[in-house]
Amino acid sequence: MFTAPVPELRLSQSFHRAADQPIGALISQALANPGLISLAAGFVDPSTLPIEATGELTASIFADPSMGRDALQYGTTTGRPDLRAEIFDRFVRPDFGAECPFTPDNLVITAGSNQLLYLLGESLLDPGDIVIAAAPSYFVFLGTLSQLGAEVVGVEADGDGMDPAALEATLIEIKSAGQLNRLKAIYLVSYFDNPAGSTLTASRRAKIIELAKQYSQDQRIMVISDEAYRPLSYEGDDLASMSSMDAASEFVVSAGTFSKSFSPGIRVGWGLLPDELVDAITAQKNNIDFGSPNLNQFIVQRALQTGRYETHVDNLRIAYRLKRDAMLAALDQYLGDIDDVVWRRPDGGLYVWLTLPKHLSASPASALFHLAVERGVLYVPGQYCFPSKGTAVHENTIRLSFGVESAERIADGIRILSLCIQETLASSD
Amino acid sequence: MFTAPVPELRLSQSFHRAADQPIGALISQALANPGLISLAAGFVDPSTLPIEATGELTASIFADPSMGRDALQYGTTTGRPDLRAEIFDRFVRPDFGAECPFTPDNLVITAGSNQLLYLLGESLLDPGDIVIAAAPSYFVFLGTLSQLGAEVVGVEADGDGMDPAALEATLIEIKSAGQLNRLKAIYLVSYFDNPAGSTLTASRRAKIIELAKQYSQDQRIMVISDEAYRPLSYEGDDLASMSSMDAASEFVVSAGTFSKSFSPGIRVGWGLLPDELVDAITAQKNNIDFGSPNLNQFIVQRALQTGRYETHVDNLRIAYRLKRDAMLAALDQYLGDIDDVVWRRPDGGLYVWLTLPKHLSASPASALFHLAVERGVLYVPGQYCFPSKGTAVHENTIRLSFGVESAERIADGIRILSLCIQETLASSD
Repeated sequence: MFTAPVPELRLSQSFHRAADQPIGALISQALANPGLISLAAGFVDPSTLPIEATGELTASIFADPSMGRDALQYGTTTGRPDLRAEIFDRFVRPDFGAECPFTPDNLVITAGSNQLLYLLGESLLDPGDIVIAAAPSYFVFLGTLSQLGAEVVGVEADGDGMDPAALEATLIEIKSAGQLNRLKAIYLVSYFDNPAGSTLTASRRAKIIELAKQYSQDQRIMVISDEAYRPLSYEGDDLASMSSMDAASEFVVSAGTFSKSFSPGIRVGWGLLPDELVDAITAQKNNIDFGSPNLNQFIVQRALQTGRYETHVDNLRIAYRLKRDAMLAALDQYLGDIDDVVWRRPDGGLYVWLTLPKHLSASPASALFHLAVERGVLYVPGQYCFPSKGTAVHENTIRLSFGVESAERIADGIRILSLCIQETLASSD
Repeated sequence: MFTAPVPELRLSQSFHRAADQPIGALISQALANPGLISLAAGFVDPSTLPIEATGELTASIFADPSMGRDALQYGTTTGRPDLRAEIFDRFVRPDFGAECPFTPDNLVITAGSNQLLYLLGESLLDPGDIVIAAAPSYFVFLGTLSQLGAEVVGVEADGDGMDPAALEATLIEIKSAGQLNRLKAIYLVSYFDNPAGSTLTASRRAKIIELAKQYSQDQRIMVISDEAYRPLSYEGDDLASMSSMDAASEFVVSAGTFSKSFSPGIRVGWGLLPDELVDAITAQKNNIDFGSPNLNQFIVQRALQTGRYETHVDNLRIAYRLKRDAMLAALDQYLGDIDDVVWRRPDGGLYVWLTLPKHLSASPASALFHLAVERGVLYVPGQYCFPSKGTAVHENTIRLSFGVESAERIADGIRILSLCIQETLASSD
């Protein structure tokens, strides 16, 4: 009998890079304090979830034996052709003029847009490769990129999204460092940014694509346009997807999802991909899950075909706009008089980006964060959202979400947060 | 305006390793020839899918607003605690005696057992690491391992699964080559093997775990026990899971799934993991999809709680046993008289492993494969199922599945295959 001590379980480099995702710590905080007002979670409002609609959709699927059978069987890895055709007709084709270089075969169905981002990372990036992202950026994808061993270089962004002049300066810098051959992608949340709430203007979209093309010298620099929040628009005109601004359909990937606009518990998203990337993404997805569950794809397809989706999104926009307005009003009321506290008014999405006085840290180790949790409010420390290189990490920032809580609790959360900010400011004077 | 030719899209090493999964080619064959009798697909029989049950389960979920809401919201990455408790009580706890070292917290819910295998690979393996697998083995996981850059070493298996004596010889060889520090795992499909139809005997299970412990000198060698087919048992006694044979719960991972026993279109599986691996798998899954869709987990949970699952599996066993018997009878009738053609009688699962005369290739490039497709029958060439090192690749082998087709079409498929074999043998004489 072999009785030596248990030898070490030696995990992969990929594991060691993945181990510390901030979302885990935040979820633990939330679970440990169930009464917390969560201004942190990017979850959707539970009161808006399409329970009745989904009940009717699933009933109609299983009432039809042929549909029910297909929904319960394996599908293809790229996703149901009928669903891809629906998505193409509704969310892709209308962005294009007379000529559209894409077909439904350029769409791959994924487990939310998040999985598409992961698959793109796996397909494009080797350890040491570079990705440019706005500072701040969607922190979960920053974590994925660092798991893949990529180096993420931040570029300044303002209320109109990533600044093309700052991007160009970064590109010049990367080029003069002889690193252009490692630069694989520019990542943007182009509508109602997570976390910054900003929408990239049309002229910036065009300019960023142009820069990607111009600096694609050693190899192609892909523009990854995360369009997850596009349906959650509360004011202003809709802009065409970034894919539609690349006439040759070679430099841009657009990612969309029904998680925010319908249900994250169903978890269906998609990517619109240049031909060359479709096979790559499909090969990777084959290894990960063989294609998204057919049942979930059927539900979304039927939601689109029956008009249930559009009705739901219309209602959602009304509900979220009210909550956004509640958050903005509370910010005015409770934080309006504090010097050097500023925030952005988002035209859609779920987030308000808040900047505190320069010396006031909102980091997870800060007095403010601990006081806020103690008083019953959870937020996402903005520092999680800054790439590790290229720009400074601004610890005096906060991502606020009006996604989950009611208007009343949002206002109350902001009131408490304001007290915590004032108290922390006073004690640090 | 920038007008140079489009620069190369340079994909990752991971992509280049992933690009050529045989399953893609097989699916293309099947799609291009929709009339084919598929003795290839590991799909479940469409006529057995639980349409009525799932219709009732979803109706009951959405009839309860609180359940409906939970089903449509995000969940936790490890999976619903209620579902994990159900799986633990039914499929884990009963394998143990008085003491069980595991709790439901050792379970992680995944998109089928296949995703668990992927996550294990990502968590354990760096390029150049070694995994030992039976020859033949589940070819999709062989593809995943090669995407991860792992070297897969095959060990001879017979009708009782992997041969421990051959495993020990391989371990000695790896050790004397100074490679033991690269050996991370031994992979087994321990019930009704895909593709070989064999079940690993209890004594071999114990011996293999013992060998893994004994050779865990530089680091731990995990035994990955793929138990996807365990519920599809048609005769013989049920064996306890491999996890239950490792008293200290440190060396074995068992993977299970409801894809085969309930529905692949719902796609819920699980892993029973030593404590140290739970966090690793969860961190990786966070990047891939944030946790499996809540709706799907609810459906499975309700199927277990209402007894719908057990009724379904009972029916499934009857249906598949009939089809297995139809395939075995047709093999007797049509191939019984051909010299050197042998096959194994599986006690469960979906597969029969067929060996042809030594000089008769069944590979995808072979005359036999093309003739079979031309005459309307698709099979999985056995050569896909052999690891690239350690043992010879036997091109004269075929994985037959009785999963998808009716008993009549199975018999007809075997009849046609027999004619193709005889014809190819005659023309090669």
